[in-house]
Amino acid sequence: MTAVRTLWRGGHLVTLASPQGWGLVPEGALVTEGDAIRWVGPLSELPPSMRDGLSAEHDLAGALVTPGLIDPHTHLVYGGERSAEFELRLQGATYEEIARAGGGIRSTVAATRAADEISLRHSALARARALMNEGLTTLEVKSGYGLSLEDEARCLRVARSLSDLGLTVRTTYLAAHALPPEFDGRTDDYVDAVCAWMPQLQQQGLIDAVDAFCERIAFSPAQTRRVFETARRLGLPVKLHAEQLSDQGGAALASEFQALSCDHLEYLSDSGIQAMADAGTVAVLLPGAFYFLRETKLPPVAALRAAGVPIALATDHNPGSSPGLSLLLMMNMACTFFRMTPEEALRGLTVNAARALGLPDRGQLVAGQRADFCVWDAGHPRELAYYFGRNPRRATVLQGRQHEA
Amino acid sequence: MTAVRTLWRGGHLVTLASPQGWGLVPEGALVTEGDAIRWVGPLSELPPSMRDGLSAEHDLAGALVTPGLIDPHTHLVYGGERSAEFELRLQGATYEEIARAGGGIRSTVAATRAADEISLRHSALARARALMNEGLTTLEVKSGYGLSLEDEARCLRVARSLSDLGLTVRTTYLAAHALPPEFDGRTDDYVDAVCAWMPQLQQQGLIDAVDAFCERIAFSPAQTRRVFETARRLGLPVKLHAEQLSDQGGAALASEFQALSCDHLEYLSDSGIQAMADAGTVAVLLPGAFYFLRETKLPPVAALRAAGVPIALATDHNPGSSPGLSLLLMMNMACTFFRMTPEEALRGLTVNAARALGLPDRGQLVAGQRADFCVWDAGHPRELAYYFGRNPRRATVLQGRQHEA
Ligand SMILES: [Zn+2]
Ligand SMILES: [Zn+2]
Repeated sequence: MTAVRTLWRGGHLVTLASPQGWGLVPEGALVTEGDAIRWVGPLSELPPSMRDGLSAEHDLAGALVTPGLIDPHTHLVYGGERSAEFELRLQGATYEEIARAGGGIRSTVAATRAADEISLRHSALARARALMNEGLTTLEVKSGYGLSLEDEARCLRVARSLSDLGLTVRTTYLAAHALPPEFDGRTDDYVDAVCAWMPQLQQQGLIDAVDAFCERIAFSPAQTRRVFETARRLGLPVKLHAEQLSDQGGAALASEFQALSCDHLEYLSDSGIQAMADAGTVAVLLPGAFYFLRETKLPPVAALRAAGVPIALATDHNPGSSPGLSLLLMMNMACTFFRMTPEEALRGLTVNAARALGLPDRGQLVAGQRADFCVWDAGHPRELAYYFGRNPRRATVLQGRQHEA
Repeated sequence: MTAVRTLWRGGHLVTLASPQGWGLVPEGALVTEGDAIRWVGPLSELPPSMRDGLSAEHDLAGALVTPGLIDPHTHLVYGGERSAEFELRLQGATYEEIARAGGGIRSTVAATRAADEISLRHSALARARALMNEGLTTLEVKSGYGLSLEDEARCLRVARSLSDLGLTVRTTYLAAHALPPEFDGRTDDYVDAVCAWMPQLQQQGLIDAVDAFCERIAFSPAQTRRVFETARRLGLPVKLHAEQLSDQGGAALASEFQALSCDHLEYLSDSGIQAMADAGTVAVLLPGAFYFLRETKLPPVAALRAAGVPIALATDHNPGSSPGLSLLLMMNMACTFFRMTPEEALRGLTVNAARALGLPDRGQLVAGQRADFCVWDAGHPRELAYYFGRNPRRATVLQGRQHEA
């Protein structure tokens, strides 16, 4: 059986084919074959052979076409929400009052543990659909609100199941996210457990990468190292929540393990940048958390750029520090807060986001890549970063097929 | 002919009926008659007489119901967009380079003057629809990119025509927005012209209120006073772009004219606050412009609250300083940046926004008010402010009729 071959013509293509520049192809055409892109270029240069065996032809009617958007850092699966805590804080409640009212990450852990798989799936599906409404085609989801073998497994299974929507889902094991109450005062014992659960979850096919939260209020560099060593023995790539609130040397540690990415990075040092550059580790910046936490320390964008570290963006969707569900808003915030250019912002949600997930088969419109792309009602790609709170998506193509949203 | 009477039951109502508190009515019911709300309360207390002559009954299925959202400050009608300028600035271009490339407000004036009524209407309709997608039911639109009698009239006509969408539209004459090139060096002559055009546009039914931009880079307090005096002679209410970049005493001046609102207000002084409180003038805060301009000076929310000045919110949608189209994001930004409570944020887009437009017939769910309301997929109204980049709107009812979006 031959794969279905389709011609998509009349689009204004944003290929991102080279390391610099939009790679614009006005009046462009894409030929897809099954789930892959077979040819990309100006329609006028389409080789006649590419028209052989075409089973469908779509007119993109002058719309803008970009690679599908990729969210490389989310905590999308959890029980409950934290709007009561948000409101209490704005009403002037103290941290003590909020804790008494059941706020903080532990309230999400309790709600997640109490939720069954069906309700976790229901709420996560709604969140994933909101992201898809703005062009999401590949989604990373971290565990980290279960914090027991059974609860982490349940959350990872729910994350995997989001691929029913037609998305690619990558799951990241983040049991080293917070200390569960039953381990109070025994952080090292908990790290032992995190390491012990890892092979079991891997055998169930639930782990694509391993992450940890290396911070004074979470896990130390030494504890993070133990998690990473276990991952390495199992052949699992690592990522790290690094230097969000202080410089812990997390980026250098992660780079030692050839981490796919270090994420947050507001307090990243020059030596951390150099280590990431040497290891080929991607910097994943999270403007939503920067905004929602009213952070004032900016991640070192100019230094990352100068060192040649690829920069990706993500929503970091989570109920405590980033209850946002808009990738386009992340582009605008990356420009507004971090002074990234619109092109850097789009690369951050496409080619560099793919790299942060170890997926070299997507993020650009070039022959051989996966046929995931978005069709936008826009004249120029910079408009995707310029507007905010506006969704110009016209259609999404997933694996060569137009997705019915 | 009797007006159609409809029962809306099974909703969780957010009435905002009192000056403080959400005014929650769980398992609530609304009876509408024609375009007005006839009765509001718990379904269990619905008087039997209210069921007489019911022509329709809708089950809101546990959804949250709030008053319809009101955007009391936009510049929604203009030609072109300014994403190229946005990109140039992020690429490190100087102001001179941007000016040479045709940036700034004058580029929007040129594009607006060059655009015909049909294309202005086309782009403005798309923007209004984006706002309606998040529950907009009443919209204010300012002129101010035409800056000639003919061009201001065209923009105001386009603004009026947006009511075809089922919205209430209020038009504000803001010719005193910027100096058009043909008046270079003759600001006072231009103010004469602004005043001379006003009665003509009023006679055409195009002006509901008069606004000015009182700022060092725009019009002086003395020039603003002349515009306001003309408005007063014509019986038109006034509003003011005041103290956005510096304290010009604009709020006190506007209060002298019993202004409906003063807008922006980052640099508002204590005496300005007192003048507004005495005059009953509403403070319209614009978190989108605060964000996009990376302003760091916060409007004096605590002092406004203490003085009893009603606070409204708006998108300030415009291509230069706030290319945003999300009222829900304004709620989240008002909480995040300005530390307003979720309840204050919702009041800011309902009852206080209505007041900023001189429309006492809307903004609350109480008998006698206009039957404009929104139905949301949310458990509690604070969720509308907590999430960002997420749209939980299920339906909008405009003048008692469910709107087909
Ligand atoms: Zn995270
Ligand atoms: Zn304005």
